[in-house]
Amino acid sequence: MEHFISLNDIKAPEQLLKKALNYQQHPLADHSLGKHKTLGLLFFNSSLRTRLSMQKAAANLGLNCLVLNVEKDSWQLEFEDGVIMNANKAEHIKEAAAVISQYCDLLGIRAFAQLDSKEKDYAETIINAFKTYASIPIINMESATLHPLQSLADWMTIEDNKPIHRPKIVLSWAPHPRALPQAVANSFLEWGQVMDADIVVTHPKGYELSEQFATNYTIEYDQTKALKDADFVYVKNWSSFKAYGQVLNTSSEWTIDAKKMAITNKGKFMHCLPIRRNVVATDAVLDAPTALCIQQAHNRVPAAQAVLAELLVQQEKQSNASAYNL
Amino acid sequence: MEHFISLNDIKAPEQLLKKALNYQQHPLADHSLGKHKTLGLLFFNSSLRTRLSMQKAAANLGLNCLVLNVEKDSWQLEFEDGVIMNANKAEHIKEAAAVISQYCDLLGIRAFAQLDSKEKDYAETIINAFKTYASIPIINMESATLHPLQSLADWMTIEDNKPIHRPKIVLSWAPHPRALPQAVANSFLEWGQVMDADIVVTHPKGYELSEQFATNYTIEYDQTKALKDADFVYVKNWSSFKAYGQVLNTSSEWTIDAKKMAITNKGKFMHCLPIRRNVVATDAVLDAPTALCIQQAHNRVPAAQAVLAELLVQQEKQSNASAYNL
Amino acid sequence: MEHFISLNDIKAPEQLLKKALNYQQHPLADHSLGKHKTLGLLFFNSSLRTRLSMQKAAANLGLNCLVLNVEKDSWQLEFEDGVIMNANKAEHIKEAAAVISQYCDLLGIRAFAQLDSKEKDYAETIINAFKTYASIPIINMESATLHPLQSLADWMTIEDNKPIHRPKIVLSWAPHPRALPQAVANSFLEWGQVMDADIVVTHPKGYELSEQFATNYTIEYDQTKALKDADFVYVKNWSSFKAYGQVLNTSSEWTIDAKKMAITNKGKFMHCLPIRRNVVATDAVLDAPTALCIQQAHNRVPAAQAVLAELLVQQEKQSNASAYNL
Repeated sequence: MEHFISLNDIKAPEQLLKKALNYQQHPLADHSLGKHKTLGLLFFNSSLRTRLSMQKAAANLGLNCLVLNVEKDSWQLEFEDGVIMNANKAEHIKEAAAVISQYCDLLGIRAFAQLDSKEKDYAETIINAFKTYASIPIINMESATLHPLQSLADWMTIEDNKPIHRPKIVLSWAPHPRALPQAVANSFLEWGQVMDADIVVTHPKGYELSEQFATNYTIEYDQTKALKDADFVYVKNWSSFKAYGQVLNTSSEWTIDAKKMAITNKGKFMHCLPIRRNVVATDAVLDAPTALCIQQAHNRVPAAQAVLAELLVQQEKQSNASAYNL
Repeated sequence: MEHFISLNDIKAPEQLLKKALNYQQHPLADHSLGKHKTLGLLFFNSSLRTRLSMQKAAANLGLNCLVLNVEKDSWQLEFEDGVIMNANKAEHIKEAAAVISQYCDLLGIRAFAQLDSKEKDYAETIINAFKTYASIPIINMESATLHPLQSLADWMTIEDNKPIHRPKIVLSWAPHPRALPQAVANSFLEWGQVMDADIVVTHPKGYELSEQFATNYTIEYDQTKALKDADFVYVKNWSSFKAYGQVLNTSSEWTIDAKKMAITNKGKFMHCLPIRRNVVATDAVLDAPTALCIQQAHNRVPAAQAVLAELLVQQEKQSNASAYNL
Repeated sequence: MEHFISLNDIKAPEQLLKKALNYQQHPLADHSLGKHKTLGLLFFNSSLRTRLSMQKAAANLGLNCLVLNVEKDSWQLEFEDGVIMNANKAEHIKEAAAVISQYCDLLGIRAFAQLDSKEKDYAETIINAFKTYASIPIINMESATLHPLQSLADWMTIEDNKPIHRPKIVLSWAPHPRALPQAVANSFLEWGQVMDADIVVTHPKGYELSEQFATNYTIEYDQTKALKDADFVYVKNWSSFKAYGQVLNTSSEWTIDAKKMAITNKGKFMHCLPIRRNVVATDAVLDAPTALCIQQAHNRVPAAQAVLAELLVQQEKQSNASAYNL
């Protein structure tokens, strides 16, 4: 694993999951692995879980951590090539990424979709620019289209709570007052490609997700039908991919409530948080013992830790390999 | 001590004071007590002393520290129950507190009074919500009505500077251009309940404080009379409690100057800082050797350290106790 | 060395340079020197390199680091004496500096020129106020008129890349859409006073720098003539010193391009970053192997580390000396 941007970066997803589950039980197992190494965390957007869980994971590995709110603490960055930089952007990603690579051993980037242009967002302009111009491993802390640290924590949570049979997992769209990115849903389904589960996606027409990340799931436009016999209900809002970035529906008919959960096979409720109570799901659902959101958030630390550890070990191997080549 | 929110949480205030005075002399006495433990610090408001002294105290105990400017770095939080969250607040305290509890072992909260509603502020909506929904000890870094870390540092400073006789301490209101909370005054008087001192409070009519925290003091509306024979003059502005949050008086007649200090018994001047020079007190008063403000600020580190250490030790005991119960 | 504000604070600049070059090769040589000591970093302005390189240097020395965005995290500071503080500034530098001195062992300050008043900026109001009212060593992280951490890194880079002969170094002004301080240019020339180099400064008329810091250089208003035989071309925009803070020229004729670099003696290109591509210099210049900007940024860590280490060692000596005097 050279970077951690999408599932494609991971040779053995099952092993990474196992590693994360091991850190869940033994958080201090490798408390010196990161000694004298530095993790940089760059935030272009708000963050609670990702910000804190990455720092906690770093501390568990003995890594030094540098946190930067890019545009508040530092300079606005230019990502386009060949531009005459005479407007409001003071620094080009070429310099910023090269410089930060010298101060850090690993680099996490959070840069949400801007939902203006499908092309720009799905080209992953920002995280790919860091990948291109940085010389250290890049960790996706939610990019325009993917949020793999969340997915790893999500699938850990499913592993911890799964029934004996192959589980049925329903990913249900839910309403939200603002237009949100598709990253969490994309990433969850991408991981679904390699996990042992039957996946059904349910949403109003017009909310079909990109086929770029996964196709091995059934779409069922009738939420009630979809929920039948579900072992897990992963709920999430996203804006339209087709009518890019638009909110086509805000109907509370899609809100997950106790009645809907009753249709499932004693299904567990999942959400990545933050969640709008009584919009995305009702208080009754969120306060029930079947809600796994807090467990999912808990698993963000061991998930991050597994990724950081894996990248550190790879880096060590490469560094030894190049030493032998001298 | 399960939390550190008000004096009521402390079984033996005198012992906590003693512990703090010990850290004042031996800051590194317990430099490994917090090893592999994490302190979260959540700021809803500005902070200089609290922010830095908490981090310094954590470092002295070997605690890892995660600092979050809640609304700038993360999401706006909803504190009301049962709300349909379709406005500007993205996350409910129920989730936020539960999640952060999993990443941290101790949690400091700064959330000032908003001075809109006496009911809301004096119900301590924010810090009590954290107490309710978090599963770890909560530390008050100035809530709507109290600032006990300041008070502990204040009473340490009095201990270090007190005369042989039982001291007379005057808490004097002073003018200020903005409406300020009553927290520092409330908390100082609450601690006064258990300390050995005669306390006189002086302020213009209409500025009477809540009787919720202390009543064992004399109110003297004539500042000159009040100051007579004072050993300590604690100066602080607060907005009206009765005409809640209002500024009823901005008269510089209440400003503390050298003439007024001359009425005292070679009295020491105290203030929690930040202080508006030549509004609350004159340069001459602040630059005199009798001003203790910088000592008070110095004592914020050992005060915080005593509280953190006490909570860590309690946590250890409880964790051992539950281990034996298995 | 008691502070690190200007070259005047450094008894032996050559030795400091040597020390920095040693840390460049052996970053962990003194990894326990700062144990149980605290570095405070106060930012009044944006920062990428300074912010991260200082934290990295601190980590390399085992120093604890407290970072504060002064006006965002804390209170607006008053720097004038005798003011009645009834406007928007909540705390006076006298208190702030004295308080922070108690929490930290070393203190870095970033406070840019405001370019409103030459008198105020060149009096170094802010950093000098910290020097006056703090009781710990002050480190200049770019003040109104100087940026010596940058200069130390710059001259390390020159040392690493210099020809056998005494180098010719050209400091060339370049256009920029905004009015920028003169600090980097002033500081580079101040260091030039003690380094072994022929220095030529080239800029449009009206952009003459203050003679306060250096005079041992030639001014050549013809950029082409200036560049002839240059071994290094240090490029930087600054606003006018004479017509203080004004932008007198934005002509792209002063932009450094490949043609201009071809006039030099295979000259190396230098810039402190952030740089406006295709305004200050073209992509071709910045992407050529002769560009040293990324090396300069790399050297910010060992430069900062040398300064921090030097101040720590001095502090230790003084502390021992006062112990013997008891």
